[in-house]
Amino acid sequence: MKVIDGGVVAAKGFKAAGIHAGLKKSKKDMALVVSECDAATAAVFTTNTVKAAPVIWDQGIAKNAVAKAVVVNSGNANACTGKKGLEDAEETAAYAASLLGTEKSKVYVCSTGVIGVPLDMEKIHKGTEALVPLLTEKGGQEAADAICTTDTFRKEVAVSVDIGGCTVTIGGMAKGSGMIHPNMATMLCFVTTDAKISSSTLSDLLGKTVEDTFNMISVDGDTSTNDTCIVLANGVAGNDEIKYGSAEYEVFEEGFHYVLGELAKLITRDGEGAGRFIEMNVVNAISDKDAKLMARSVISSSLVKAAFFGSDANWGRILCAMGYSGAAFDPSLVDLSFSSSQGTIETVHAGEPLPFSEEIAKKILLEKEIVVTADCHQGAGKATAWGCDLTYDYVKINGDYRS
Amino acid sequence: MKVIDGGVVAAKGFKAAGIHAGLKKSKKDMALVVSECDAATAAVFTTNTVKAAPVIWDQGIAKNAVAKAVVVNSGNANACTGKKGLEDAEETAAYAASLLGTEKSKVYVCSTGVIGVPLDMEKIHKGTEALVPLLTEKGGQEAADAICTTDTFRKEVAVSVDIGGCTVTIGGMAKGSGMIHPNMATMLCFVTTDAKISSSTLSDLLGKTVEDTFNMISVDGDTSTNDTCIVLANGVAGNDEIKYGSAEYEVFEEGFHYVLGELAKLITRDGEGAGRFIEMNVVNAISDKDAKLMARSVISSSLVKAAFFGSDANWGRILCAMGYSGAAFDPSLVDLSFSSSQGTIETVHAGEPLPFSEEIAKKILLEKEIVVTADCHQGAGKATAWGCDLTYDYVKINGDYRS
Repeated sequence: MKVIDGGVVAAKGFKAAGIHAGLKKSKKDMALVVSECDAATAAVFTTNTVKAAPVIWDQGIAKNAVAKAVVVNSGNANACTGKKGLEDAEETAAYAASLLGTEKSKVYVCSTGVIGVPLDMEKIHKGTEALVPLLTEKGGQEAADAICTTDTFRKEVAVSVDIGGCTVTIGGMAKGSGMIHPNMATMLCFVTTDAKISSSTLSDLLGKTVEDTFNMISVDGDTSTNDTCIVLANGVAGNDEIKYGSAEYEVFEEGFHYVLGELAKLITRDGEGAGRFIEMNVVNAISDKDAKLMARSVISSSLVKAAFFGSDANWGRILCAMGYSGAAFDPSLVDLSFSSSQGTIETVHAGEPLPFSEEIAKKILLEKEIVVTADCHQGAGKATAWGCDLTYDYVKINGDYRS
Repeated sequence: MKVIDGGVVAAKGFKAAGIHAGLKKSKKDMALVVSECDAATAAVFTTNTVKAAPVIWDQGIAKNAVAKAVVVNSGNANACTGKKGLEDAEETAAYAASLLGTEKSKVYVCSTGVIGVPLDMEKIHKGTEALVPLLTEKGGQEAADAICTTDTFRKEVAVSVDIGGCTVTIGGMAKGSGMIHPNMATMLCFVTTDAKISSSTLSDLLGKTVEDTFNMISVDGDTSTNDTCIVLANGVAGNDEIKYGSAEYEVFEEGFHYVLGELAKLITRDGEGAGRFIEMNVVNAISDKDAKLMARSVISSSLVKAAFFGSDANWGRILCAMGYSGAAFDPSLVDLSFSSSQGTIETVHAGEPLPFSEEIAKKILLEKEIVVTADCHQGAGKATAWGCDLTYDYVKINGDYRS
């Protein structure tokens, strides 16, 4: 596996573009990603009962299993917009399809931004018209910029892997949580690959991989109405079809997992107001499931997150969050340590506190990237979750009226 | 039902005292509550897998169904302290029992404060010795002060009710969430009554009432290792025993629910760094269970809480939190409004936004007490939850190192 540049257009046969269409004041706000031929597709969506109109549209596209393009706007979420919202999502797809010479049933539509406000369809149409002639194999950065909201940097990852002597590329772009009044956190992720792989195999792989990547990060625990992760596989690389469970599948899986994992971590690093990136490892738990529950509980705890903001080696809050996670474990067996580039400090052994130097602990915890490891000494279960600290800036970004 | 003064010693046959025993620098840090005779008892404890030593001790007392006293310290949680911690909890009970002329099996022990540090048993013994001669029927305030940690005010409530011509009193005190490094949020609540009621009836009533009161509040979603709610019923009022399901039971239940509900709300009002008190009502849901899930989800959302800090009528975040609560409901039927002493503003009708004056909305939301009502128009289910906003001060209190 080789990490490469190019993001969402790293794979062969994909073009992208990003522009300012006027939905936001001055930043880029519309992106288009297109495959040169029909692509197998899979997607996962928010589990929120309140789903934005484009999510409902996209669920239909994913069921068809074939897609060619994705139109994204980052100014208006088209959520809580009723029947008009559904019509607008469909109309967005239909208009892009007509310009791209395909059917609307092959065009995904994604939106993020203000909610409860009807889409300005004139701007969407003009934006789509402007995007089509700009489509290029080098347009990944523009597209990655154009899907951002309060993100402070664009998020792109790509790798190439060798599938039976054939170079197959997997790349993607994502945006993290961002608020625009009155709005909510939204995660969007678009992955492209030139692999030949069926929609159903891709769908299995996506479900499994999201479980260990996007479902293991937390900025604030809120699940948006618009969360979407879409994969397109156009087969342009020329490999023999990747079959579930084959050696080739495993190679592809490694690359695919890397792309989604890195994009997930980039979102966490760019968490609103975040100053520190926290990795929580749980090892030797009774099961992977228990380990996951504990790791997720810790990175979601406001008390733990606030402690990291204060560079406080507050192991008690971590044990506490493991304790209310619903996981089965014996607290009297747990070892707990904190690490960073400045070293490692053991704070708990067999459930009881170890004496440690507060000075060294502080030095370790003042770093920007902290790793916490809880060893349960009970089995072989393990999991990793990623999060960030809770800061004044988080409260400011999300509390300021009409910011 | 009549609201009266006196808190935990409002009921006949109870005495209390509170002192500074030296576990904290200068504030009161030990309290003792004693019934003049053996009392029927019931208690509920944290569901956290990581339980502090006194919780484990108290679970045994509650099983015995008879108790006479509660010793509390608010300087040291005696959590994550291993075998020594369990011995110290038992020794605390035994020493108090010897001074009070009762058995240790009738003495509850509660602790909150620093974790992972052994109890200073000399201070606990001296503190207990000092408390006993100070016990008085007017010692409620001192006791209520002595159980506080970062609480900014003492929390006491009492009512009297008429049970078959006999005046029965129910009173209590509580402390809310507070941090002392390295520590976690802890809720303690002590309720006393002079009613004659069996331990099993009291236990049923407590379980049911906690579900609608303490389990419907959230400051930051973390469940402590020490959370405890204890009830003592000494029968001194002289009423005929209150039997489950009788008319007398209903009268008693009303008073009991009021005391726990008001104490729960006081804890929320005193939430760390909280500037606003939020009441979330869900009405006409498919079931009470669905309504509870939605109400709790909204008051636990960091995004919703940050929006209230900013006096932002961010109905989208509320609908979103209802959406990921796990409750069944149809978003396209929901009406949503915000109220305060400054009036009411309707923001959503049948799932779609209503135009509203931002000026009026801001005026309503700048108040300290906000009521949000979501009408699901689907059934008769209803629930209320209470929470507070997420502020800079919350982050400061919980993030400041060694504060």
